[in-house]
Amino acid sequence: MARPAYDEFQRQREEFLNRERSRGLGADLVLSADEERLNRYVMHLKQQELAKGVENPYELVSGRHFFEMLERINDSPLFKLIQKMPKGGILHAHDTAIGSTELIVRATHHEHLWQSGSIPQAEGDPMPAYKFSRTKPTVDGDWRLVADIRSSMGSEAYDAAIRQMFTLYTKDPLNAHRDINDVWRKFMALFICFEPMVTYRPVWEEYFYGCLEELLADNVTYLEFRGLLPPVYDLDDRTYSPEEIVQMYVEQSDKFLRAHPKFMGVKFIYAPLKFCDDATFDGYLELVQKLQQRFPNFIAGFDLVGQEDLGRPHTDFNERLLRLPPTINFFFHAGETNWIGRRDENLIDAILLGTKRIGHGFAALKHPVVLEEVKKRQICIELNPISNQVLKLVQDFRNHAGAFYFSDNYPVVVSSDDPSFWCAAPLSHDFFVAFMGLASARADLRLLKKLALNSIEYSSMDGAEKSVAMEKWTTAWNTFLQEALQSVPGEF
Amino acid sequence: MARPAYDEFQRQREEFLNRERSRGLGADLVLSADEERLNRYVMHLKQQELAKGVENPYELVSGRHFFEMLERINDSPLFKLIQKMPKGGILHAHDTAIGSTELIVRATHHEHLWQSGSIPQAEGDPMPAYKFSRTKPTVDGDWRLVADIRSSMGSEAYDAAIRQMFTLYTKDPLNAHRDINDVWRKFMALFICFEPMVTYRPVWEEYFYGCLEELLADNVTYLEFRGLLPPVYDLDDRTYSPEEIVQMYVEQSDKFLRAHPKFMGVKFIYAPLKFCDDATFDGYLELVQKLQQRFPNFIAGFDLVGQEDLGRPHTDFNERLLRLPPTINFFFHAGETNWIGRRDENLIDAILLGTKRIGHGFAALKHPVVLEEVKKRQICIELNPISNQVLKLVQDFRNHAGAFYFSDNYPVVVSSDDPSFWCAAPLSHDFFVAFMGLASARADLRLLKKLALNSIEYSSMDGAEKSVAMEKWTTAWNTFLQEALQSVPGEF
Repeated sequence: MARPAYDEFQRQREEFLNRERSRGLGADLVLSADEERLNRYVMHLKQQELAKGVENPYELVSGRHFFEMLERINDSPLFKLIQKMPKGGILHAHDTAIGSTELIVRATHHEHLWQSGSIPQAEGDPMPAYKFSRTKPTVDGDWRLVADIRSSMGSEAYDAAIRQMFTLYTKDPLNAHRDINDVWRKFMALFICFEPMVTYRPVWEEYFYGCLEELLADNVTYLEFRGLLPPVYDLDDRTYSPEEIVQMYVEQSDKFLRAHPKFMGVKFIYAPLKFCDDATFDGYLELVQKLQQRFPNFIAGFDLVGQEDLGRPHTDFNERLLRLPPTINFFFHAGETNWIGRRDENLIDAILLGTKRIGHGFAALKHPVVLEEVKKRQICIELNPISNQVLKLVQDFRNHAGAFYFSDNYPVVVSSDDPSFWCAAPLSHDFFVAFMGLASARADLRLLKKLALNSIEYSSMDGAEKSVAMEKWTTAWNTFLQEALQSVPGEF
Repeated sequence: MARPAYDEFQRQREEFLNRERSRGLGADLVLSADEERLNRYVMHLKQQELAKGVENPYELVSGRHFFEMLERINDSPLFKLIQKMPKGGILHAHDTAIGSTELIVRATHHEHLWQSGSIPQAEGDPMPAYKFSRTKPTVDGDWRLVADIRSSMGSEAYDAAIRQMFTLYTKDPLNAHRDINDVWRKFMALFICFEPMVTYRPVWEEYFYGCLEELLADNVTYLEFRGLLPPVYDLDDRTYSPEEIVQMYVEQSDKFLRAHPKFMGVKFIYAPLKFCDDATFDGYLELVQKLQQRFPNFIAGFDLVGQEDLGRPHTDFNERLLRLPPTINFFFHAGETNWIGRRDENLIDAILLGTKRIGHGFAALKHPVVLEEVKKRQICIELNPISNQVLKLVQDFRNHAGAFYFSDNYPVVVSSDDPSFWCAAPLSHDFFVAFMGLASARADLRLLKKLALNSIEYSSMDGAEKSVAMEKWTTAWNTFLQEALQSVPGEF
């Protein structure tokens, strides 16, 4: 075959690049003149940041561990811009890992909190137990009032110790945990230690309201979160039922929405642990139906959580799940694993069960029929890039499966999973690493805007709710645009 | 939408799994009864090995660094079986990094070898210089005869030091090099240090013949290798021309083929460094045409080598490359990078220039149109999984882009790039990690057989050569099968 002339080759090359670019996430959006101007500035900041890593990959923010780069990200002008950007909603995050460590610190300032054991000094030390109680807890342990520990060690020192304890953050993340099971053990230990603190009713309500405030401050205005509904209790030894707990969520949400009319809404996915016996599982299914009947507008559906590699496979649950009425929507975690041909096959179950979205879907990349069905059925993949790095699925963000999904406009959102435990903002850090690492160096403001739009499109809001949400988001976007343009230098 | 009944769901699930499996690499092959029996044993060994990593990912051979697992791989019965398997050919390997360190040790036993500087004691120490010469080299340096160093430190100690110097192998691979540029610097230093040793004519011929012997011992019976044609010299200060150097390759190959008629052949891809100015580049293009005219059956084509992120982009060379006659085939390295939207776009140039195969193609995954064209044009991607891990593109083999290519039967071969520098066999270790890590846990003997068949199909052999090669390979495969079955326990 004869080779083309150079000008013909150049034409073919341009066409090839255009074909590729036209398939990327957000390529269908047309920017306004104002957006174009902001985009030039955004791309300048992006290229400036990436350039640091061209000659020196050790300085590449998208190639390194998030913990190693956190301070630099926080200082970067592009991150600050992304923080201000209306990002739509969070569609994948877990109840007690959404709020920042400051909300945990605030919890420890409540009266009647007891601690047994000490705050770990070194990696691997056991974590203390907590309990709110008027009187010293009767279960075994060296219970002391946190108020007393606080005054003996100094209040600021205690707060600092709490901040350090309730995070996976470490200066040496590549060596801190040797494998995925190790880091998951620590991760689970954080949830378990924190639970009796957050399930104390006053904290429960305050924490959840605080989460919504932090979302809004991060310019996230919709939340569709997963929760275990752990038993909430009070000082009178009352344990609240799941319905009462959901009622608390509803009340706090309503209160917050009244105070902040630009917020678009809150919905809840009941997502208990997949480490359970069949009888317990039957209980989950009964409960989700009851909740759905009582809170039809608040309950989005059902999911199962826990480390996928070690949890029961979906095949254990399918028969029972199929008996649920079709009014119960599924939002299954699936493919949160590096395995190929093992638990990653949960993806197939999730799809055939009619899941509306897929949590993580990291392994979907290695399943060609899953990929086809995801596109055909428009099943949104909820990407959580920082979570996947911290929990040791992937090291370099540019190798994240999301890079593939972005390149060919798969239905995706970017979410944050458990931002509390990696010192991340509710959503901005995940948007940042997605934009810098999962996305092509060429991907621009349209990708960020598309991620925000997708978070509305693939949410569980109904048509009317989505219309209202779109109006609110558009207003916020236009306001952001005008404000952002004021600080864009004249040359752009 | 109503949910299906459980038996209907099970039927759909089986069908879904079958659709996926039928698309995987090798799924089109039908095994004979004997092959089926061996396959049951192979899958038993595979599952047994993978099972170690299910509960304890730190023991997962496909999830860890090759250097950390090398001893265990070498001891594993599955690896030993893969070593004995006729694997077809190596389509991607580099001239002076194919032979084992023992061939380098053997080179240092030649007379008249001089060394300036010491063998490094610690990471980062400079490497010594070498030169064959009848008299002490006149260039600056503290030249001593290797024979003298050898007798002063003990011959075995010297050999051991040589083995340790000419490898990237280290006990702590995750911390040994902080980024891709660091490890490439070391990697390049090995080539540079070794060059004056291997380009001494007696070593040059003996080394190349030794490589072919090692290939055969690893049951690899075809070689299509890339080389820089560095100036070969002798003790009479003669420097050989590129044509003379290729002539040496041809002669050694012919001699080897006469001695080993089951070997299928050798071809050469002229692949100079992409770090060059335009005038030098013009020289490359002239040379490849001259070589092709003089050795039409031996010269397969042209390529460019060097760290892709830092080398000149393909766009610098396209205009000149297009002027080459269409008889010169291209086998470009492209997409050996984690970048998206930068040097990875070399993939587009490679395809539009009509490349026959793509070296590495790691980044092709993130280019949907590249993926389409690779399938449409049947451009074989030469995967080198261990190389990509050692040179810091990817950590967990299950995240290697090859996992995606395998899952949907992309045209691929597995090769070894520079096995010498990672203490790997010519091909068996790459086959092993590809089978255990890139492939699904479900992928079986058909995948391994397909990889061997692909290495013939996508080679540069012409039709007649391929027929002969297929006959030889089939004979070897059947012999292997009968021998392997003798050690398969009765229960399979």
